[in-house]
Amino acid sequence: MKKLVLTGAAGRLGSYLREPLTRMCDELVSTDIVADIGKLYDGESYVQADLTDLAAMEAIVKDATMVVHFGAIGDEAPWDDILRSNIIGAYNVWEAAYRQGVKRVVYASSVHAVGMHLKTDTIGLDAPHRPDTYYGLAKCFAEDLASLYWDKRGIESVCMRIFSCAQATNARSIGTWLSYDDLIHLVERSIDSAVVGFTKVWGLSNNDRAVVDNSKAGHLGFRPKDNAEQFAKDVFAKTPPLDNKDLANLCIGGPFATVELGNSGVAALGVVNDKKTT
Amino acid sequence: MKKLVLTGAAGRLGSYLREPLTRMCDELVSTDIVADIGKLYDGESYVQADLTDLAAMEAIVKDATMVVHFGAIGDEAPWDDILRSNIIGAYNVWEAAYRQGVKRVVYASSVHAVGMHLKTDTIGLDAPHRPDTYYGLAKCFAEDLASLYWDKRGIESVCMRIFSCAQATNARSIGTWLSYDDLIHLVERSIDSAVVGFTKVWGLSNNDRAVVDNSKAGHLGFRPKDNAEQFAKDVFAKTPPLDNKDLANLCIGGPFATVELGNSGVAALGVVNDKKTT
Amino acid sequence: MKKLVLTGAAGRLGSYLREPLTRMCDELVSTDIVADIGKLYDGESYVQADLTDLAAMEAIVKDATMVVHFGAIGDEAPWDDILRSNIIGAYNVWEAAYRQGVKRVVYASSVHAVGMHLKTDTIGLDAPHRPDTYYGLAKCFAEDLASLYWDKRGIESVCMRIFSCAQATNARSIGTWLSYDDLIHLVERSIDSAVVGFTKVWGLSNNDRAVVDNSKAGHLGFRPKDNAEQFAKDVFAKTPPLDNKDLANLCIGGPFATVELGNSGVAALGVVNDKKTT
Amino acid sequence: MKKLVLTGAAGRLGSYLREPLTRMCDELVSTDIVADIGKLYDGESYVQADLTDLAAMEAIVKDATMVVHFGAIGDEAPWDDILRSNIIGAYNVWEAAYRQGVKRVVYASSVHAVGMHLKTDTIGLDAPHRPDTYYGLAKCFAEDLASLYWDKRGIESVCMRIFSCAQATNARSIGTWLSYDDLIHLVERSIDSAVVGFTKVWGLSNNDRAVVDNSKAGHLGFRPKDNAEQFAKDVFAKTPPLDNKDLANLCIGGPFATVELGNSGVAALGVVNDKKTT
Amino acid sequence: MKKLVLTGAAGRLGSYLREPLTRMCDELVSTDIVADIGKLYDGESYVQADLTDLAAMEAIVKDATMVVHFGAIGDEAPWDDILRSNIIGAYNVWEAAYRQGVKRVVYASSVHAVGMHLKTDTIGLDAPHRPDTYYGLAKCFAEDLASLYWDKRGIESVCMRIFSCAQATNARSIGTWLSYDDLIHLVERSIDSAVVGFTKVWGLSNNDRAVVDNSKAGHLGFRPKDNAEQFAKDVFAKTPPLDNKDLANLCIGGPFATVELGNSGVAALGVVNDKKTT
Amino acid sequence: MKKLVLTGAAGRLGSYLREPLTRMCDELVSTDIVADIGKLYDGESYVQADLTDLAAMEAIVKDATMVVHFGAIGDEAPWDDILRSNIIGAYNVWEAAYRQGVKRVVYASSVHAVGMHLKTDTIGLDAPHRPDTYYGLAKCFAEDLASLYWDKRGIESVCMRIFSCAQATNARSIGTWLSYDDLIHLVERSIDSAVVGFTKVWGLSNNDRAVVDNSKAGHLGFRPKDNAEQFAKDVFAKTPPLDNKDLANLCIGGPFATVELGNSGVAALGVVNDKKTT
Repeated sequence: MKKLVLTGAAGRLGSYLREPLTRMCDELVSTDIVADIGKLYDGESYVQADLTDLAAMEAIVKDATMVVHFGAIGDEAPWDDILRSNIIGAYNVWEAAYRQGVKRVVYASSVHAVGMHLKTDTIGLDAPHRPDTYYGLAKCFAEDLASLYWDKRGIESVCMRIFSCAQATNARSIGTWLSYDDLIHLVERSIDSAVVGFTKVWGLSNNDRAVVDNSKAGHLGFRPKDNAEQFAKDVFAKTPPLDNKDLANLCIGGPFATVELGNSGVAALGVVNDKKTT
Repeated sequence: MKKLVLTGAAGRLGSYLREPLTRMCDELVSTDIVADIGKLYDGESYVQADLTDLAAMEAIVKDATMVVHFGAIGDEAPWDDILRSNIIGAYNVWEAAYRQGVKRVVYASSVHAVGMHLKTDTIGLDAPHRPDTYYGLAKCFAEDLASLYWDKRGIESVCMRIFSCAQATNARSIGTWLSYDDLIHLVERSIDSAVVGFTKVWGLSNNDRAVVDNSKAGHLGFRPKDNAEQFAKDVFAKTPPLDNKDLANLCIGGPFATVELGNSGVAALGVVNDKKTT
Repeated sequence: MKKLVLTGAAGRLGSYLREPLTRMCDELVSTDIVADIGKLYDGESYVQADLTDLAAMEAIVKDATMVVHFGAIGDEAPWDDILRSNIIGAYNVWEAAYRQGVKRVVYASSVHAVGMHLKTDTIGLDAPHRPDTYYGLAKCFAEDLASLYWDKRGIESVCMRIFSCAQATNARSIGTWLSYDDLIHLVERSIDSAVVGFTKVWGLSNNDRAVVDNSKAGHLGFRPKDNAEQFAKDVFAKTPPLDNKDLANLCIGGPFATVELGNSGVAALGVVNDKKTT
Repeated sequence: MKKLVLTGAAGRLGSYLREPLTRMCDELVSTDIVADIGKLYDGESYVQADLTDLAAMEAIVKDATMVVHFGAIGDEAPWDDILRSNIIGAYNVWEAAYRQGVKRVVYASSVHAVGMHLKTDTIGLDAPHRPDTYYGLAKCFAEDLASLYWDKRGIESVCMRIFSCAQATNARSIGTWLSYDDLIHLVERSIDSAVVGFTKVWGLSNNDRAVVDNSKAGHLGFRPKDNAEQFAKDVFAKTPPLDNKDLANLCIGGPFATVELGNSGVAALGVVNDKKTT
Repeated sequence: MKKLVLTGAAGRLGSYLREPLTRMCDELVSTDIVADIGKLYDGESYVQADLTDLAAMEAIVKDATMVVHFGAIGDEAPWDDILRSNIIGAYNVWEAAYRQGVKRVVYASSVHAVGMHLKTDTIGLDAPHRPDTYYGLAKCFAEDLASLYWDKRGIESVCMRIFSCAQATNARSIGTWLSYDDLIHLVERSIDSAVVGFTKVWGLSNNDRAVVDNSKAGHLGFRPKDNAEQFAKDVFAKTPPLDNKDLANLCIGGPFATVELGNSGVAALGVVNDKKTT
Repeated sequence: MKKLVLTGAAGRLGSYLREPLTRMCDELVSTDIVADIGKLYDGESYVQADLTDLAAMEAIVKDATMVVHFGAIGDEAPWDDILRSNIIGAYNVWEAAYRQGVKRVVYASSVHAVGMHLKTDTIGLDAPHRPDTYYGLAKCFAEDLASLYWDKRGIESVCMRIFSCAQATNARSIGTWLSYDDLIHLVERSIDSAVVGFTKVWGLSNNDRAVVDNSKAGHLGFRPKDNAEQFAKDVFAKTPPLDNKDLANLCIGGPFATVELGNSGVAALGVVNDKKTT
């Protein structure tokens, strides 16, 4: 691949992806809203841009083969912020990709698109959307947008529904952890798969207590290696009994299932899914 | 019911609903973006407002029990227009409803939220979103929004996926027609059902050749009476053989399945689903 | 058919069935725990018996072709009562049938075997058991017993999951009503069908707002004629707004979904499903 | 439609279709293996031909828009006969249609393609093939052939799984009857539907006791009017009790479920599905 | 966990669990109907009690956090015995748990709740009940009871459907074996999972030829390590050809699928699932 | 096992099986249409025969316990060839097996029976037939034949849907590879399983990017060990970007999805599934 674009490159997860992505292309163009992302890797360049600026996005994705789209607010936020960064931003990425002949968008979707489903249902990829927040609602929007651009315009997408990509420090994450290595593996498979059409895939590690079923994404070849069970004993020892009437404990969205719409879920989560990037 | 609000009251379908709705409440507040909707019915008042103005929407729905939400661009349109009227507009309606304690939103969703599904699949209400246009994408968004407001805030919604509510003058409409009487019946049931939670329902008449299966919405009691078969012979006589490789003939979204994104589908459809209202 | 047995003949629903059943056989043996059921119909005889007495049941079903089993406590009740009348009683009926070579048991099962399912899900006959009371739990037991006796001993059963067979006087019953005529029709089809194996069927009328889907019981030919919609306007006019967070309004079991286990649901229901018979 | 071809025109069911089909086209070409089918209807011509002769079939379907394919052995028969008439014959019809640019094949498939399924399962159109005879096996073959010609060559097909199209004189037929009028209606809808792709549909009347579920063929608009229930009382009165361990009574294929492979099922059925035509 | 109760502690499987369970709590109270279970482990005490004595059960579970319920007749038995130990006994355990504020019941359910399903169907956890014996029927009852107590009273349950927890010495067990280590692992996960609601899980090892699919119990994190394939060659060498028309070989319940109701299946099984404990 | 028969023994895959099969029986009778297959293994004898000769097949399978049926044209071919070798040949094998009391047929079915399904759907074994060629159509036929002989005559079958059993040298094969070792393992399990009834199973290795889901064949115990991922980097490096509108890249049948019916797919595949044997 000649050119690859990474949005949200200054974000927590984006930062982890920069170096691995340089090894998958001749030229990685990283972009984010901040002025500077520090020292660049070999083959990487940085362009400051706002996702809400379609013209800027077009310029950035010109001649690229794929876009790895991680740029967005990475937490629950007020509607206007989600609208601007996560909804309009998503539109701009797919539309820019279309206008510039980009082949594929690899997208950081989220469990929160379906966060109100019960943990005890072990849902598959065919479960209906059931967002838990504005943040999750925007993920639903982007997935449907990706479906539309595939059906109508032939732009491929992989919607990676990322779970808890952070230190596994609470009881929920023993089931929902995605290690950094497995995240990188997932992104690599989303890029190197020959044909993906419109693909959804759960982004979580090979945890003993995985709360979802990835069997409908077999073709993508995502085979995570890590397993949060290694942290279980320590985490459970520090965890007080959980209230089993609390939706935050019953739903796969975790604390987002009960957080007030528009309010940050960070404190409740005890972990940041991704810091704000755009 | 004391007070009911109708958005999009100046629109083609909204206009049909005004009189029947006055009979279901003490006070019908009709609203649209136009200055005037002509002679009012008994019990009806009119308020000019823009759906994109949240404060205005809040003022209108104050003390209402339900909102019948038909206000939106009723056709494929450029993204910026869909974003403003159909996405932000939808958010404003549900958010205003929440802030003012409104119990339920009865929403004019559309077949175009799932328009890329094949006609020969006779899908049920559990089929995944598969929009055919920006117009359909916005319907997907509003349905997920409705799901979110029910799960998180207890606002009920009925998402009526309206098909071809217009004269049945082409071959597709023999399967997809929704008569005006059946539309009114559907809206009435969406209002008088005691508890609806988050309900989706196909909005089409009792056509012999109905292309979808409503059996998962039994509780709503929608029992359409009309049947487009009465028009079949005449319509088919005037219809040249259809190209069975053309997605417009294969997909339930009809011409929207092939219309260029952002361009009006009206000419292709040969029928207006609804004229622009907001 | 030469001989048919009706249990629970003194009960509310059993009483309605006596006369119609005499027309389907040469000899109807009605039985219940009471001393006397009044004037008998042509071809009917009465035997007082306790369902918990296996020997008595054996004597009654001797030479019968089928048993129509309505005998049981027809409401939520303390566990010990349900155990005796509805669980042990059911065992005795199937076991007596087996010992005496009876071909089929037509059983008054109930919606309460699955009463905790959501009304808005319009479940089919393949939904899992989800009882709402001890009463419903005993229905689950009897259905599984019927399955066992078919698989292991070739005794056929029809499990009629009866909904609200009483005057339709509350909002729930507009969706769940089973008219007396439709009950009789259902029992007739359960008897005259040539081969039924182990069949489950929803027992409710052809209500516009029917909350379940009978399409998996097509072979039985139950085609109800009545429709509670005729009562809807009057009933709704008298019904205050229902609390849509109350499981009694959300679940198909209605008030049984919230009644305390072991306590009668009668007051809450405002209608008796069946009075106590055994 | 200018030209329509009917194979098996001398057969029992084919004979019924000749006159109605003349009303759906300018020119009906009837064909069968016999020398003569008697007096012709207006617009009908007859060509004697053997289905196993591809060149002859090509000549017959030249310039036709559709083929209504009823030509085949209409009963269980020795393998070599089924192979020749029903398998090779089917291949020749679709291949001839392809070579001559015919748009659609309307095919007399049969319940016997799935005859080993249980009557009490009320299967839908998505149930897997489960043939009960060589006859049924050939129907499976032709359905898969139809699927192949649609996917690879764009030839449309409607596979009508005909049940008991004959006098309803036995207990099974109360559930499986297809009246002649409903057969004609089904063929008409299979012809006049604008786009059908590869469509399967159950061919049975609106019987109370219909043993299958047609809800996945909604787009075809088959709405049968007749109901075998009118014969039920008389038929049941003459029917001795059926053995409920006998697969002939348990399976939707009826006597074909137990007939020895290669032997005629006619005697067992008490009714001829169709007499031999080719 | 402060206090844990084990019923059936003198039984074959219960005996294996005593020592591991002491390591999961401060205080293990073992109970069974026998006078004495021999030498106790550190942290273990023993209380003789009859499961049919609700007051005794209440006293035992007082202040316990969870109950591991293995007490029951562990084989097919006459109805009256099953009724007393396995049905009434189960009721007493859940009711005592409820009255004393116990959080969770970990229950030894069994494959025999669904034993009549075909081995070649590889059913999932959503397959309907299909018991093969009175023993299996009582397991169905207890599972429905567990569902009821979760829905109505918030008592959690894990229903472990144990297969062949014994030496793998016959052909069936190569597919159905549950090693003792994997049993312990399963019980541990059923205890240490933070929230389980009403969970069902298949209890069998990681056998190559596992006859069921556990993918709907992902959240529980049961990852068995053992594999009966190590015994396959030896066992098959000693196994005569099996009759493939025999339900004992076709159904996942094995010999229980053909054992006479009420008669012990032990001889047929060649292995005791559990000896009688209550 | 005393005697085992292998058809297609001179074919590419058959050749690989000869030696392993000799270790599973006392006497292996290999057969094919060629005069000679070279040096025989211990316990192996060779009989030249044509699959289209039923009498010859009967003679060969006499006294055999099972037939491993690999004899057929192993590629797309003209209809008449497929008819003779793959359809009539299959009939002869099952019919000969029936006449001679053979217990089981282990059959080399193929992905091409369902080759038109989308790669991104990760279908299970319950997906409907959807052949991509005459070759695949004949596989459909044989699977339905196997179903028929099990249901009606008690002959067991395992239909192994073999994918790409050859060097993994193109992008598709990274997902569809079946190593020779895994093929042998699959055949062994198909033989040594005690009871298989009518079983379908996907025949592909444990590839990261496996395009189908084998979870419904758990009872067979097929646990492939190899993984084509080892070849991915090299293969992808040599692969130009694939056209994602080309059905050959979208469908699991690969190039067969676009090959002209009746024309060899070999050139397109770049690999021979099996050379012609009969």
